[in-house]
Amino acid sequence: MVTVAFVGLGLNDERGLTLEGLEEAKKADAAFAEFYTNFMPNLDLKRLEDLIGKKVRVLNRSQLEDDEGRELLSFGQESKVVLFVPGDPMVATTHISLRLSLSIMGVKTRIVHAASIVSAICGATGLQSFKFGKAITVPYEEPLPNSVLETISENRERGLHTLLLLDVKAGQERQLSIREALSRIESANANFRELLAVGVARLGAPDEKVKGGRLRSLISEDFGAPPQAIVAVGKLHFMETEALKALCGVPDEDLREIR
Amino acid sequence: MVTVAFVGLGLNDERGLTLEGLEEAKKADAAFAEFYTNFMPNLDLKRLEDLIGKKVRVLNRSQLEDDEGRELLSFGQESKVVLFVPGDPMVATTHISLRLSLSIMGVKTRIVHAASIVSAICGATGLQSFKFGKAITVPYEEPLPNSVLETISENRERGLHTLLLLDVKAGQERQLSIREALSRIESANANFRELLAVGVARLGAPDEKVKGGRLRSLISEDFGAPPQAIVAVGKLHFMETEALKALCGVPDEDLREIR
Repeated sequence: MVTVAFVGLGLNDERGLTLEGLEEAKKADAAFAEFYTNFMPNLDLKRLEDLIGKKVRVLNRSQLEDDEGRELLSFGQESKVVLFVPGDPMVATTHISLRLSLSIMGVKTRIVHAASIVSAICGATGLQSFKFGKAITVPYEEPLPNSVLETISENRERGLHTLLLLDVKAGQERQLSIREALSRIESANANFRELLAVGVARLGAPDEKVKGGRLRSLISEDFGAPPQAIVAVGKLHFMETEALKALCGVPDEDLREIR
Repeated sequence: MVTVAFVGLGLNDERGLTLEGLEEAKKADAAFAEFYTNFMPNLDLKRLEDLIGKKVRVLNRSQLEDDEGRELLSFGQESKVVLFVPGDPMVATTHISLRLSLSIMGVKTRIVHAASIVSAICGATGLQSFKFGKAITVPYEEPLPNSVLETISENRERGLHTLLLLDVKAGQERQLSIREALSRIESANANFRELLAVGVARLGAPDEKVKGGRLRSLISEDFGAPPQAIVAVGKLHFMETEALKALCGVPDEDLREIR
């Protein structure tokens, strides 16, 4: 029987792999990877291959999804296959669909979980996990869909933070930047100039950058290379206020008149 | 200068550690761990010690927090210390506070991220990450605080799922079970008998159990050993409906009349 294990690569580089993921990949007959749902510019494919003792074939979206994962199954009837995925595998909803297709074909699937920005954002910013409302992706799509500002506003009405994921351009090594996303939010509604936000670039990397402030000033901050994400801040617990100052470099004056 | 690295242990056992976390722990002068913010019954401390080549001292809440982490600093002025934490370190908000205290004392801190139930719940259930609203912990506290049912209802009004974390009893190896939490929700408001929910036990372990259904029937399901958690389901995308059937064993009749 064929088994496909979705193995998370976590954050930053190949060392985001867990010991269990490494075991699973060493035992596998074939290894694949995708980097279209997320960026891992610091991951060294050669080092990953050396670690697991086999070649890793990188698939693009159409190779992986157009035939509902059959590419993964071309290694015979008795194979164990791993598919490396950035972050925690099923945070990319497209892989839930792939997993269901494989299940319908009678392929056994399993998941080896890894770190995801969804939880790591708390460590990077000091904002509390249970204070986050619904997350949303800021897409490349023009004009900016209303759902982005609505999600931020609805969360803020309930005192909650919003994780804003930034779109990855299909087929290109390009991600919407913090600056681009903030400009598009400001253009859509000038009231958001006063929004308190935190930008996070290269989470988990040695050169991780975390910087917060009002949107109007944050918009001119240079965050450097991807991957990047933003938090739109909601109501603050006093410990979160301290964290924003100590960990996110938010100036005191930007913290006045926050609900 | 002292450095404290908060190193996530991820899910299930010591193999949830990342390759980066392993490197960090091997290089450290001293290793500590805590298991009071979460359960890891399958983790073998001896195997963890063998992996990192040094003893791991397990601290309870008061040892770690009463002196604001000074216990971690008792290894001299030039030490590198790791503190192992279940899941992704800063999802437990108490560690944000510890990290801030250490920062104030001039101690450099870093985080090695790992898998957390906050993202892994999507893989276990097939429910989509961006469809989750605010999460909440069901506490041991009697009576059940209104905030639990309010959070579920507010999320559901917006079509969103709610991750219900289950309280861990301080100082004891005991966690509120799925069954106990569901009974308490039912007792607080009988209308919740029709709530569609998914119970998840031992996420990431070989004997992981995922089972969904209406609260009234799910309440008699035996989920076995901890750790456990619940998702209160909101509005479903058709792919999520398929996932609930295929991955969570939700019977067809339980999926009728869901908004």
